[in-house]
Amino acid sequence: MTLNHLVPRLAVAARKQDDRETKLKPFRNWRVHVDHGVLNVMPFLAKGLSDRDRVILRCDATALAEVVRKGVYTAVDVLTAFIKAAVAAQDTTNCLTEICFEDALERARELDEHMEKTGNVVGPLHGVPVSIKDHIKVKGLDTSTGYTAWAYNTVAEEDALVVKILRDAGAIIYVKTQNPQTLLSLETNNNVFGRTCNPFNRSLTAGGSSGGEGALIACGGSPLGVGTDIGGSVRVPAAHCGLYGLKGSVARLPHSGLLGSYDGLDAIIGCVGPMATSARDLALFCSVMLEAEPWLREPPLLEMPWKENVARGHGLPERLSIAILYDDGVVRPHPPILQALDMYKQALENAGHEVIKWDPLDHQKGWDLIVKLYLLDGGAEYHETIQAGGEWEVPQSKWILDHARGRRPYTPHEILRLNVEREAFRANALAHWNATKHRTATGRPVDAILCPVAPTLAPPHDSTSWWGYTSHWNLLDLPAVVFPVGQYSAPMWVPADLSPPRNAMEDFITRQWSPNTYDHAPISLQLVGRRLNEERLLAILGVIENVMPPADSVPFSRRFSHGTNGHYKATDG
Amino acid sequence: MTLNHLVPRLAVAARKQDDRETKLKPFRNWRVHVDHGVLNVMPFLAKGLSDRDRVILRCDATALAEVVRKGVYTAVDVLTAFIKAAVAAQDTTNCLTEICFEDALERARELDEHMEKTGNVVGPLHGVPVSIKDHIKVKGLDTSTGYTAWAYNTVAEEDALVVKILRDAGAIIYVKTQNPQTLLSLETNNNVFGRTCNPFNRSLTAGGSSGGEGALIACGGSPLGVGTDIGGSVRVPAAHCGLYGLKGSVARLPHSGLLGSYDGLDAIIGCVGPMATSARDLALFCSVMLEAEPWLREPPLLEMPWKENVARGHGLPERLSIAILYDDGVVRPHPPILQALDMYKQALENAGHEVIKWDPLDHQKGWDLIVKLYLLDGGAEYHETIQAGGEWEVPQSKWILDHARGRRPYTPHEILRLNVEREAFRANALAHWNATKHRTATGRPVDAILCPVAPTLAPPHDSTSWWGYTSHWNLLDLPAVVFPVGQYSAPMWVPADLSPPRNAMEDFITRQWSPNTYDHAPISLQLVGRRLNEERLLAILGVIENVMPPADSVPFSRRFSHGTNGHYKATDG
Repeated sequence: MTLNHLVPRLAVAARKQDDRETKLKPFRNWRVHVDHGVLNVMPFLAKGLSDRDRVILRCDATALAEVVRKGVYTAVDVLTAFIKAAVAAQDTTNCLTEICFEDALERARELDEHMEKTGNVVGPLHGVPVSIKDHIKVKGLDTSTGYTAWAYNTVAEEDALVVKILRDAGAIIYVKTQNPQTLLSLETNNNVFGRTCNPFNRSLTAGGSSGGEGALIACGGSPLGVGTDIGGSVRVPAAHCGLYGLKGSVARLPHSGLLGSYDGLDAIIGCVGPMATSARDLALFCSVMLEAEPWLREPPLLEMPWKENVARGHGLPERLSIAILYDDGVVRPHPPILQALDMYKQALENAGHEVIKWDPLDHQKGWDLIVKLYLLDGGAEYHETIQAGGEWEVPQSKWILDHARGRRPYTPHEILRLNVEREAFRANALAHWNATKHRTATGRPVDAILCPVAPTLAPPHDSTSWWGYTSHWNLLDLPAVVFPVGQYSAPMWVPADLSPPRNAMEDFITRQWSPNTYDHAPISLQLVGRRLNEERLLAILGVIENVMPPADSVPFSRRFSHGTNGHYKATDG
Repeated sequence: MTLNHLVPRLAVAARKQDDRETKLKPFRNWRVHVDHGVLNVMPFLAKGLSDRDRVILRCDATALAEVVRKGVYTAVDVLTAFIKAAVAAQDTTNCLTEICFEDALERARELDEHMEKTGNVVGPLHGVPVSIKDHIKVKGLDTSTGYTAWAYNTVAEEDALVVKILRDAGAIIYVKTQNPQTLLSLETNNNVFGRTCNPFNRSLTAGGSSGGEGALIACGGSPLGVGTDIGGSVRVPAAHCGLYGLKGSVARLPHSGLLGSYDGLDAIIGCVGPMATSARDLALFCSVMLEAEPWLREPPLLEMPWKENVARGHGLPERLSIAILYDDGVVRPHPPILQALDMYKQALENAGHEVIKWDPLDHQKGWDLIVKLYLLDGGAEYHETIQAGGEWEVPQSKWILDHARGRRPYTPHEILRLNVEREAFRANALAHWNATKHRTATGRPVDAILCPVAPTLAPPHDSTSWWGYTSHWNLLDLPAVVFPVGQYSAPMWVPADLSPPRNAMEDFITRQWSPNTYDHAPISLQLVGRRLNEERLLAILGVIENVMPPADSVPFSRRFSHGTNGHYKATDG
């Protein structure tokens, strides 16, 4: 055990962790030990990797599917490389929960035999390893979801729909990843497996709630992961770990077969979303999901096939109008984020695109509303599950539950009033977006909003406290994609002036800024599109990344820029 | 006043009715008086009509748009004819609420001037009169919605989105129509304006809750009406009045700007839907709505343009597989309805289509669930509004409210459990539909379900008691269209054997059967399609109506068969 100091030792937790340890034992040759004092573990992860492994790990999922299809590498070669990296990721960041490497290797051998026999792949993800967030059901594996009460009581009898479709497409499910207690957290910590660290700087959070995916993929331990997002849970870990992550519109991607508290909540609905090392992998994931016609298997899903040509830019105007949201009016982002937005503004304008400022629409009011929708019963269901497991609230659970602590459950009448408020908020925002046509040179409303993902880079553990840059788009049900734009380096930082805080929340976050705290943290941005226009959003991201590819001088970004600069276009490998 | 015996005389009701009377006065030359003892008023409605009026009133909305566009008739000609018929409809069935004939005539004159000046129409509904159900906001008019408490307190400051789009397309709004107290009723009766009768037989209900539309359109007083449906409220009055009516999938058609109880309810959501005298008019309505891109004005709406070519049959297999639902397992329909289903089975098979039996999926359980979703608070909001107006529950309000009388409001936890149950019900039904592929010769799941609209033809007032044939499809969010197939004639009826009742509800409805009760009542059927496939549903209806057009020998159906047999195909006029 390498990370005992991060892990509570409840009896059931000890058993879960021992079980995980047992599953890792056969792969002990690939284990990595890094001193606790070392914050950035990225340089240490290559131990035990062959040259072939290194080549494989530099591929995104799109490229992996291609090299396996072309017979350059076998599915076993590919999976082996990712298992090695996953073991190293676990040893350094504590990102894994359930492990099924043996079954996965067996499946890889089957896929290789199938290729050899028939000359054909079984589907577009033939031989691509895919990791799954813990609360998404994988047949035969536990779904403890960060609750001690659920550990060993939630072995899945069947796969979630997203997992089924992945398997049918040839993907190999080999590992499940950490999520926090309650899932309603933008960090990743629970009393079953403990805390997940950011591999770029272990004093910082990997983000959450899909933080296990964030750390694992950043370490090279997975090319493509499946997360979920109801307030930022795909986007924040993607941002904090320097990855691409997509939260689509509600009901576009399969969402059945998940465990979590508040099943049946209509008032605010989460989304399954992909996390990856390239934008084109996000599109690949969506395309695989929608080609399976999931609306014939999950009633709420919309019969809206993936428009590949739109995702590739068909119909996009040559000159884009992009709105930039610098400051949501509640918490001004930390200086590196503002600097990144300015860089993109310049690059977009230099390339002939139009940039206007986005006037934020009351993010505080939006937050006050969404947190009520999250906690209609005052948090009772969370409290009950935590108590049932004989555990305690981890700090980020406490932080969110404090928003409703002691409040009685809402009545049906109160719930309906909140829904009415939500609809009015959405209608207002839609009109606001439409009205940008009066401010653009093109006379069109803006094509997308470029904005921060959070007011900070990955913050120190247990300190995340403003969701308004991500939860706002859940409240509005707008698709949003996160992409890496650089890496913060403390020694190279030129101090900037900070504005005086406007409120207690901003005061807290302003005080969080210190040039040294965030050393090596990824810098990421978010692009927000029109509802149900996921394809167009990715096409716009492609344009933006063409205008300014992630800097090659930034170490971590090499993984995202092998030939395609990570943005979405046809593979040229 | 012609219908005093049907109308309560609360002070506010008296004032509303007097106001309506005042608005009708300038049109007194066209008023119709029919003895109370006369049940079928249809033969008496032509009084005061010119030959031109008669030609105009035989047109459906599609044809009206065409004759106005071509200059055959002016918008004023058209509107005048419909106002005459609307006055007669009011005098005989009590179907109107708010009247704005003068403003409408002014608008018609404007439209005619516009045509004269520019040679162009303002939109696809240029000069087509459209009637609006009372609870849908029309700027400047009251929205009393069947509640005395709301009378004079709900003058709309702006149009509902559906009304805005209609006006932009050139439609003329000239009248609002009756809906029942609570809106949650399949009949139409309230303490503001009283009861609406079925023009084919005034001892029978016109259906509800869009019963004002049903009676008005059946009388020739409107070519196209806008209703709403959360349990059958478009389809039941369409059926009972021999009309076409469409309840689409949730979020396909504009639904904002409506007044009603339980605003903000997510658990079960209603739909705006058109009522008309031809299937092609339903398609015209949808096409006008979706060409306006309403998703840019109402956030919940889906960006799903109207696929005109699909509605016209593009992509439809030559041989259809249709499932017929004869009996929902709770209440066997009355003999004329079973006979109609058998006729369609024969005709479909004779035309080379496949027909299989639809095994019903627990309509009782579905009803027990949906009625809980309607009444999450035990009905408190209805009770409060009724009490606030100093009025009483009309019998059908009492009937529905009895389902939850005295029950405490559900907690958030209970609401979520109901939602989970709803989703499981939907998933089960989707799998059930998919599984029909094992029973069809084509190997495809069935294309649509043909079924009753209700277990009875339009029943005597205050006796509607089984919603399971319509509310079932609201619970599943499947699109459903109602179409007329004939007219019941008591003297021509050959008695049929009735099965022994299986439960108290069926016992009640079996006892309701008596050949003489339903004389002249329309016979209608319902066709149910796949979610969000409104276009395909109408295309299938077109095939079915080609196989068996409404009998020309049936008096009322003449209105639906002028050249196109009412089904949806390109105009050939």
